[in-house]
Amino acid sequence: MNFFYKNTVLIDEKTLIQTSQKLNNYIDHLREVAKKNNYESDEASINLPFDEGLVKKIRSLKDKKIANNLKYLILIGIGGSNLGTKAIYDAIYGYYDVLEPQRFPKIIFLDTQDESVLTKTTSLINSLSSKDQVLVNAISKSGSTTETAANLEVVYDVLQNKFGDINDRIVITTDSGSKLQTAAEEKQIDVLIIPKKVGGRYSVFSAVGLFPLAVAGIDIDQLILGARNMRDFCLKKTTEDNPAVNSAIVLYLHNKQGKNINDNFIFLPQIESLGKWYRQLQGERIGKNGKGLTPTVSIGSTDLHSVGQLYLGGPRDKITTFIYADGLKEKILVRQKMIFNTVGAISGKSIQKIMDAITQGVKKAYQNQELPFTEIVFEDITEKTLGEFLQFKMIEIMFLGKLMDVNAFDQPQVELYKTETKKILS
Amino acid sequence: MNFFYKNTVLIDEKTLIQTSQKLNNYIDHLREVAKKNNYESDEASINLPFDEGLVKKIRSLKDKKIANNLKYLILIGIGGSNLGTKAIYDAIYGYYDVLEPQRFPKIIFLDTQDESVLTKTTSLINSLSSKDQVLVNAISKSGSTTETAANLEVVYDVLQNKFGDINDRIVITTDSGSKLQTAAEEKQIDVLIIPKKVGGRYSVFSAVGLFPLAVAGIDIDQLILGARNMRDFCLKKTTEDNPAVNSAIVLYLHNKQGKNINDNFIFLPQIESLGKWYRQLQGERIGKNGKGLTPTVSIGSTDLHSVGQLYLGGPRDKITTFIYADGLKEKILVRQKMIFNTVGAISGKSIQKIMDAITQGVKKAYQNQELPFTEIVFEDITEKTLGEFLQFKMIEIMFLGKLMDVNAFDQPQVELYKTETKKILS
Repeated sequence: MNFFYKNTVLIDEKTLIQTSQKLNNYIDHLREVAKKNNYESDEASINLPFDEGLVKKIRSLKDKKIANNLKYLILIGIGGSNLGTKAIYDAIYGYYDVLEPQRFPKIIFLDTQDESVLTKTTSLINSLSSKDQVLVNAISKSGSTTETAANLEVVYDVLQNKFGDINDRIVITTDSGSKLQTAAEEKQIDVLIIPKKVGGRYSVFSAVGLFPLAVAGIDIDQLILGARNMRDFCLKKTTEDNPAVNSAIVLYLHNKQGKNINDNFIFLPQIESLGKWYRQLQGERIGKNGKGLTPTVSIGSTDLHSVGQLYLGGPRDKITTFIYADGLKEKILVRQKMIFNTVGAISGKSIQKIMDAITQGVKKAYQNQELPFTEIVFEDITEKTLGEFLQFKMIEIMFLGKLMDVNAFDQPQVELYKTETKKILS
Repeated sequence: MNFFYKNTVLIDEKTLIQTSQKLNNYIDHLREVAKKNNYESDEASINLPFDEGLVKKIRSLKDKKIANNLKYLILIGIGGSNLGTKAIYDAIYGYYDVLEPQRFPKIIFLDTQDESVLTKTTSLINSLSSKDQVLVNAISKSGSTTETAANLEVVYDVLQNKFGDINDRIVITTDSGSKLQTAAEEKQIDVLIIPKKVGGRYSVFSAVGLFPLAVAGIDIDQLILGARNMRDFCLKKTTEDNPAVNSAIVLYLHNKQGKNINDNFIFLPQIESLGKWYRQLQGERIGKNGKGLTPTVSIGSTDLHSVGQLYLGGPRDKITTFIYADGLKEKILVRQKMIFNTVGAISGKSIQKIMDAITQGVKKAYQNQELPFTEIVFEDITEKTLGEFLQFKMIEIMFLGKLMDVNAFDQPQVELYKTETKKILS
């Protein structure tokens, strides 16, 4: 994964350098956190990929829980508890699930409250012949997330009605000391613990993400390797090339100049969920005290036929992050002598080359219109490059919080609707 | 479907009334278009649901093309050519496709250029035992959309390699006189024609949407019935209650006051694609001449755990449209004596009731924070209510274009990237 910005962000070099220097002290702090290699500071999440005991524990629980015939992992969790997992799963497998009806295990994501989804999940469970074909992983940091609690109670009921004792088919992931942990352990249900200081938004490399991903067949070693490598880059001094610093200062400076939207324009449809993971990360960590950018996710080339007109011809209120691949293998060619022959230029070209041409064409159009953008370029979509991206973005957001002078580790306004909801429910 | 706005948009009644009156002449024009009941004006799309010949033609082609064993409809199209179909299909079936592996026919949507998707589609086609199990509908208004042309050439090749003569398994939907029509007819491939004056964004009730939806088992009569009923409401004089007028003036007035984002916050996850359909409609029809709002789609309750913090605590730059259901049947209860018992308030409540409480809690929090919003309330998600929504929104956008003084029937800046792409490809 590479990050480019210099000639396309339309900010002079001097301003960029001066702004990046504001982060020097904070980089020192992060390096200190990394050196301590424990879970005692707000930024503790940066040490997760170096926790070898964690990986060992996850691998052993996985081996205990699943045999070759696992068909469905039901992941019950919402927000920070499922978006990172969904991002990686969708990129490698999930985006193609309807096209690959015979590939297993598949992850079923239960996040919000949805009776139609629960009805169909019930039918699916009832169609299984053995309880080994299903595993449930319920994830809630606090242990008291309403949607997760309700979905877990309902799914437990359905499984019990079908298979009897199913406590060995459940894994709970939560904070140490939560009510959920106590309830699970009373029933001899396996529990994975999230370090207290690792907030939900930064928890993808904890058991929250690693366990379900390992169960789904994702190579978590490579994922972690990507994260480790990227942490090195993102803790470099600002005088060197640090992608997280550079990305954060561009967002900060353009926001200061009045741009209130950060569009993440992704020319790799299988990572749309990765965009949504980033959207929650930026949205919840930076949007407070009247500050923040609204992160959006657009998919190329699909959205060129959707919001492309708005982006090129509408208000100049966006700083764009183009995310695409360069150098992907070309395997599928449009034949030379075409059958319908309606667009001459594609004859004999690969599908990948056509996509590359569209991506580069859009970038050129943005430059011609003087619309600012940065670029994140994947060499390929693999566990390793996805791990790099996740780590890059989590550290970028810590830097952006520092620059914008907001606490990137709390979410005070979320209580506003929760309080109202509680009043209505009781 | 009902639309509410009066007490929650934070605009005084006098301003609302004065603004709505600006649309009186245009309503007269639309009524004239409806009376003529032909396809000769820019607003021709409002007559589609009244075209009985069209429905007859679609039903007869459907009967000719499909038998009971159809498994996959491969829909090749992008933007206006697939988003409306995807919106309806996903709402009724597609959102649940992974949970219902045995339900057929399924629609496979090929829109952008994606070698991994084409590779897996090829495997899927090769796993079929008879060409009757698959039907291809390629849709391009101009007949020369790059992505659609390339995907069609590749899929045709794969089908031909597997099954030999497959011209009877293809249906082309395009403008009269396009190169695609000519090429198809040369091969005795069936062609459905889109009326010239019906632009892609407004084409969901033409053959573009109706044919694939009918093939997929959607009740297109009900869809059209919803659209017909809604047109009546949306052509009412502004002194009466006209949802399209009211919605357009709220968007217009808030945009004038500086809000540049229209968040569509949907508490019905199965209609996320409907949100994306609206996003393209608003984005491409209104975003021009430096004007326009950026339409976003958020999903409740999922995104309360994602961007909820930003929306409640960040910049006040949004006019929100809440979209939810009221009065859905309650079927699934959390048991009274709970198993984990981590959230007391949900004991014995239905999943639907919990979702309703969250929705109402969010609305209350927005009101407390003085964040303006309108409400679209579904009594249920059916073909009829979806048809109502589509028609409501298409007429709303015509009104919004008029108020914002932009042409809601062109997309001049889209050429900017197409020109650059062509240079690169040739």
